[in-house]
Amino acid sequence: MTSLKTPKGTMDESPRQCFLHEEIIERIRRVFVLYGAVPISTPTFEMKSILTNKYGEDTKLIYDLKDQGGEICALRYDLTVPFARYLASNKIRRMKRYQIGRVYRRDQPSIARGRLREFVQADFDIAGECIQMMADAEVVSCVDRILSMFGIGEYRIKVNDRRILTSILEVVGVSCESYGTVCSTIDKIEKMSWEDIGRELVLKGLSEEQVRTTKKYMTMGGKEDVLGLLKADPVYGIERCKAAVHDMEELFRLCRILGCSSSLVMDISLARGLDYYTGMILEAEYVGKSVGSVIGGGRYDNLTENLGERCVSTPCVGFSVGVSRIFSLLYEEYDKESSTVVYVGASGGLFLDERLSVLRILQDANICSETFYTRRSSFESQQKYVAKKKIPFIVVVGESEIAAGSVQVINALTRKKEIVKVEQMVSYLLDPENQ
Amino acid sequence: MTSLKTPKGTMDESPRQCFLHEEIIERIRRVFVLYGAVPISTPTFEMKSILTNKYGEDTKLIYDLKDQGGEICALRYDLTVPFARYLASNKIRRMKRYQIGRVYRRDQPSIARGRLREFVQADFDIAGECIQMMADAEVVSCVDRILSMFGIGEYRIKVNDRRILTSILEVVGVSCESYGTVCSTIDKIEKMSWEDIGRELVLKGLSEEQVRTTKKYMTMGGKEDVLGLLKADPVYGIERCKAAVHDMEELFRLCRILGCSSSLVMDISLARGLDYYTGMILEAEYVGKSVGSVIGGGRYDNLTENLGERCVSTPCVGFSVGVSRIFSLLYEEYDKESSTVVYVGASGGLFLDERLSVLRILQDANICSETFYTRRSSFESQQKYVAKKKIPFIVVVGESEIAAGSVQVINALTRKKEIVKVEQMVSYLLDPENQ
Repeated sequence: MTSLKTPKGTMDESPRQCFLHEEIIERIRRVFVLYGAVPISTPTFEMKSILTNKYGEDTKLIYDLKDQGGEICALRYDLTVPFARYLASNKIRRMKRYQIGRVYRRDQPSIARGRLREFVQADFDIAGECIQMMADAEVVSCVDRILSMFGIGEYRIKVNDRRILTSILEVVGVSCESYGTVCSTIDKIEKMSWEDIGRELVLKGLSEEQVRTTKKYMTMGGKEDVLGLLKADPVYGIERCKAAVHDMEELFRLCRILGCSSSLVMDISLARGLDYYTGMILEAEYVGKSVGSVIGGGRYDNLTENLGERCVSTPCVGFSVGVSRIFSLLYEEYDKESSTVVYVGASGGLFLDERLSVLRILQDANICSETFYTRRSSFESQQKYVAKKKIPFIVVVGESEIAAGSVQVINALTRKKEIVKVEQMVSYLLDPENQ
Repeated sequence: MTSLKTPKGTMDESPRQCFLHEEIIERIRRVFVLYGAVPISTPTFEMKSILTNKYGEDTKLIYDLKDQGGEICALRYDLTVPFARYLASNKIRRMKRYQIGRVYRRDQPSIARGRLREFVQADFDIAGECIQMMADAEVVSCVDRILSMFGIGEYRIKVNDRRILTSILEVVGVSCESYGTVCSTIDKIEKMSWEDIGRELVLKGLSEEQVRTTKKYMTMGGKEDVLGLLKADPVYGIERCKAAVHDMEELFRLCRILGCSSSLVMDISLARGLDYYTGMILEAEYVGKSVGSVIGGGRYDNLTENLGERCVSTPCVGFSVGVSRIFSLLYEEYDKESSTVVYVGASGGLFLDERLSVLRILQDANICSETFYTRRSSFESQQKYVAKKKIPFIVVVGESEIAAGSVQVINALTRKKEIVKVEQMVSYLLDPENQ
């Protein structure tokens, strides 16, 4: 027998889920537009070769298409690499774009925590040479506006700089080639104990001593003042660390002007697993919520260049909103089931033709409306339906109303009933006094 | 060297293309909602077993995912089979839903004609037992409203009934088992000459005589009056043909009440290639446009039942809008490049911090705005950018303005310039008199 299940890690969305999903996406989209971003769209799958060597240890999570005698393709893992490919193939040197779409990862799914194999990301990115840290600050400002918009509660935007992290690893004595894989492990800091992190780092070649020193740095607390601690530390002797610390200071300064610094914290343990980040990295979460980070991003200055031989370098910075995670934080409270404004009911008969005439008038006036097409229906069951779907109006067609060229309009909320001539129905419904 | 191309039959969308795509989708969505439909969403890929035996000869066009040691999946070919699967797996007997999403076909692509391997469909379907032909008529009404909305020009909605077609094949003497494959050939009637159709039918086992009789029926002209011709024909002796002719008459009657009959034509040669149709089928096109049909659909009463052993039968009728085809009819005339309302410019210096303060005020007031972050920029180049993107306002920050706590507001269309206090800037911009 054929199984009717959806593939592992994917799910259907019911109308209620869809309504919420669409609302979240639309609200995020409006923030992107507020910042002057323009939309682009890329295919759901890419040439496999574009996706290789971009995601570090997560490359194993890429979904491949079957070789059906054509090109070798894979489903997109994120919207960042496709954006870099878009810039490179169209030779675009400057762009502020957004893209909202599904991405695919063969990960261990957890529906409750909003972790699926197919999920929606909403991305905002700025490409092009800018005044130092300005694009990064705008990214933080946009993140801040999105997080505050949903009314979910207190949130933190954690930032770090990849160069600080690699400088620390240099001081600890980790070899260059291991930076990526060590970052992958450090990235798990919120999900694993330091004991397990340490064990994994030892497996990756670090000595117990090196693990201890790494931990010392990673647990440096504080907000912006961590930057002061770093300035007093040997790691500050490394040129790229010095540059990064100054960049972070400028980021905090610009964010204060933009009004988005109150939730911003410096977190030296923030690593981000992906290979392509080069400078500022960020991750944002709602405090005390179980879904983990809902936004992640950072600077990736070399990604376009690394796509191919003749590709130029275009500095980029941006972030992805994990729409499904925000969804899972809002869904419990959400109860929209329908967009219908008027239900055309019938009392004392079916009156199909008459109901259709009324429906046509309503729809021609752009009023979302529906009626029943079943072979029988009691007025009680119609009222039940209207109540369940929270439809604000019922327009009732009955024998005496038809004879008089009228309908009865019932406000489902206030219970107010009125007989209205058919030709006055639309203006009656649109009159704020009757709503 | 890595190629930066998108996979065959897929394409990137530039901001302008995306703006248009989003607008088309939003307008279609609003019509669906006008008819009381609710959204659902299903995964981009399905268990492969769900998709087999549904698409007749087009099954070869399905995109399979690679077997990576999990389930065997394939990208969805349409949104109809996933909807039927949704109904069956959730045991839903009645629903009016819409779904807008990408579908995938390994077909021969033609970008100019809006035929791609990845493209967007917007689907509207009504599931559940209804008064005879009522759901079908609502489907026609919804199709009619969508086609008239875009202002592309004259259009035709062609309808037929699969049962009329199979009755004709019965009269011609084609065996039951061949109905599907013969319909696939007849479906190509607009793309192939009757000579080639005839040749293909002979290959499929029909005699020259049978081809001639089939052709006689298929070229019966007329609108609703074809139904009269059929009533006088031997084919009317077949019970299911009689039922279908009466259904078509009722469809025309209901469509007259709903005000959507003027573009409706009966077309006996309309076949639709897919296996799952059982009754009314429809196809709509703009007259004299090269892209072919932009909407297709029909009744599929047995699809849910055929999904599995314990699945019940739920009658369904619906249609898909080929969004990319409508797109290709509208794109040439379309020129939106940006949603930005205010560009924050600078004159006589960079004034980054001051521009950021102004930007923050605008964005806090929900006014879409942007500024430049380059290390230099002449006021002329800023004006050029604003003109190119058709941004309505420039707010200029300069030395004297800063000293006076003011900005200069320029209406890019009327060229009107005014010095405005920063605290009055938002109300000035929102005042219709200044727009």
